[in-house]
Parts: sequence; C-alpha cells; structure tokens
Amino acid sequence: MITVYGYSPSGNTHKLRMLLSQLGREHRWVEIDIARGDTRTPEYLAKNPNGKAPMIELEDGRTLAESDAILYWLAEGSAYFAGDAWQRAQTMAWMFFEQYSHEPCVAVARFICGWTPLDSPRRADLPRLRERGNQALAVMETHLSSHAWFSGGGSGYGIADIALFGYTHVADEGGFDLQRYPRLCDWLERVKAQPGYVPMPRYAEEHYALIAASKEST
Amino acid sequence: MITVYGYSPSGNTHKLRMLLSQLGREHRWVEIDIARGDTRTPEYLAKNPNGKAPMIELEDGRTLAESDAILYWLAEGSAYFAGDAWQRAQTMAWMFFEQYSHEPCVAVARFICGWTPLDSPRRADLPRLRERGNQALAVMETHLSSHAWFSGGGSGYGIADIALFGYTHVADEGGFDLQRYPRLCDWLERVKAQPGYVPMPRYAEEHYALIAASKEST
Repeated sequence: MITVYGYSPSGNTHKLRMLLSQLGREHRWVEIDIARGDTRTPEYLAKNPNGKAPMIELEDGRTLAESDAILYWLAEGSAYFAGDAWQRAQTMAWMFFEQYSHEPCVAVARFICGWTPLDSPRRADLPRLRERGNQALAVMETHLSSHAWFSGGGSGYGIADIALFGYTHVADEGGFDLQRYPRLCDWLERVKAQPGYVPMPRYAEEHYALIAASKEST
Repeated sequence: MITVYGYSPSGNTHKLRMLLSQLGREHRWVEIDIARGDTRTPEYLAKNPNGKAPMIELEDGRTLAESDAILYWLAEGSAYFAGDAWQRAQTMAWMFFEQYSHEPCVAVARFICGWTPLDSPRRADLPRLRERGNQALAVMETHLSSHAWFSGGGSGYGIADIALFGYTHVADEGGFDLQRYPRLCDWLERVKAQPGYVPMPRYAEEHYALIAASKEST
C-alpha cells in the first residue's frame, strides 16, 4: 500500500485525494503541515530533498514527488490518462501549464491571503500575481470554448482536469473573480459531478478569517 | 514532418534541438524572437493561446505547447524515455521540478541579465532569484551524489537530463557560480558527451554584452 504525505488545504495535495478516491485505490494518509515546517525537517528532506508536498512512499521506502508526476503514475493505464500518444501529450502540456503558468500565481495569491499575516510584505505581490493568474484563467476559458475537458486533447475527464481543478476551484480565496469565466465555472461543476469526486476538507478557521479579512482590505 | 517554432537562445527551445538531433528526427525550424514579441501576435496566439515558445505543429495544423510535454511526445517509445512505470514517473517528477523550482529562477535570472536594460527595475529580483535558483541547483547536486542521471529513476540519460540541461548549462549567464556544484559540472560534461549532442547556437552580441556588464555590476 502507498503512503501519501499531504497537506489537505493544498490544491496540489487535493489532486491526489481526488484521484485516489476516483481510482478506489487504498492508501495510508500522513497529514503534514507545510506552514508548520513539516516539509523542512531532516527526516522529510531525506525522503524529498526539494522539501515539498505532496509526496508518496512505497512500502519499500522509495518515494515520488511532484503532484502532477504522482497523478501520472497513479493514472497510468486507467481512463484518467487515456488517448493516443498525441492526446496524452496534450494532457501533459496542460499539467506543465498548470505548474508553470497557473499554480505560481493562483495558488500563491491564495496562500498569501490565507496563510500570511495581514501586514506581510508579501501582500505587495498580490496585484502582479492576480494579473498573471487571470491570464492563466483566460487561457483556460479560451480552451473551454471548443472543448469540454483538458485531458486527452479535450476528449475526456482525466488528470489534466484534476491538476487544474486543484487550485482553480479555490481561486476566489486568492481574490480571483471566477464569475468573469462562465465556461470555467461550468467546467468546475462538471468536475464536481464526476463519480468519486471528493471535496477539499475544511481547514483551520484562522485561514478562513485571514481570507475574509483579505477580501475586505482590497 | 513537424514544424518547430523556437527561439534558439532559450533553454526551453534548446531542449527540442537536442532531442531532435539525438533522435535523428527530420523537422522544419521556424525561428521566432520572443524578445521582439513574435509569440504575442494574433497568428501565434491562435496556435498557442498561452503565447509561449517552443511549440510544435503537425502537418494537419495541430499544435503542442510546453517544452517538457513536447520532449515527452517526441521521446515516447525511445531510449530517451525508458524504464518501467515508476522510473518513467521519476523522469516526469524531475521535469516538473525543472519547470516549477528551477526554470522560474535560473532561466529568469539569465533573461534579466542578458535581455533587459542595465537599469531595468526587474534587476531588483536577482538576489531572490539567485537564492532560489541555488536551492534548485543544490537539490540536483544532492541527487547526483548517488545517481549518474536524472532520467529513469537515475538509471540512464534521457529527457529529464535534457530538460534540466537546457538552462543549467547557461546558468552562469544568470550569475550562478556552477563551480559550487562539482557533480553538476561533471554531469554537464557527461550530457555534452552524449551521441548527437548539439550546442546552443551563438546568439546576438547585445545579449553577451549585457551579460558581461551584469557580471561587472554585481
């Protein structure tokens, strides 16, 4: 059985929770707290020198990092990574888009809003992060004008959708107005209607309070 | 035959030049200039709404973006993407590491040094980019203490090595001192010794001049 090391409020971690549920795959879950420094301990760094979550561990101790690489490994041979070589490459392209053009803006803006103090100097980054995050959301909206999904060249639900859902569905917590993207909103609902979908667990109240205060201060 | 749209001084583009050479794969090359805005024209954005290079195009007009997804597609079934499912997932993990933890620091620092004026306000980002870029280079150095390569779980040369080579081999142009990483320097030489290796073409003199001036000013 695999062990998942994850921080449940993280969109990157939530991707794994969703796919594991949809595959019906048994696993152990070790909850870690990134904000508390659990990924920077010597024990964790010995397993993952880049000090990031999520990570999975096999029973023999071998580990695999990077949320989208873990999705790829879990989904191999399943309907969640389907299509011919070209379609699978399109799935990969959206996952690289997610990690390069989407997550560093959408996820980081949310982190700053809900996981840093209201007087954090990092809040000066928010306008730029929102500008670039909106560019990424607009690219997704354009794709959805001619495709129902992001996986398999747009042909079906799969790991590219899961990867992009991770932070898009909580983007409002980073100050993004998803109502500007009606097709994206419809796609979020289609993802939530998939068999085996699980919502992100509720997290500590302090984060919701910071997110609410961030909205008032903008 | 595929068409490659690339900007030769870009490490992301250079990955494709290397693999195409090593696979001996025929292709057309369309040189574009990112700095001149060639990826922001309506024609280019119609092919790739995210406005990035490199990109490949099939004869029927279908396109694929994201350098590491293109490597994945080109290498499928070849020795450059070898191993069992777990080993291939490790290859993918290093490619996601490259795009998330390495490129946004190492490549962006180099871009600022060689492609922006000496009085650009973006130069204020350099200390932070170098701090984070050195963290990524240190993670690579740690891996190389027990593995010769990054692909296939460390078992052989392949697309994860090509992906990481793209910007690592020109990291000194962004102000990184690679001599701090002796295993990384040895690995760069091993990559350069691979059959079919091609060096990055020489680029416009203005960039070398800016890079030299950047070194003097730090």
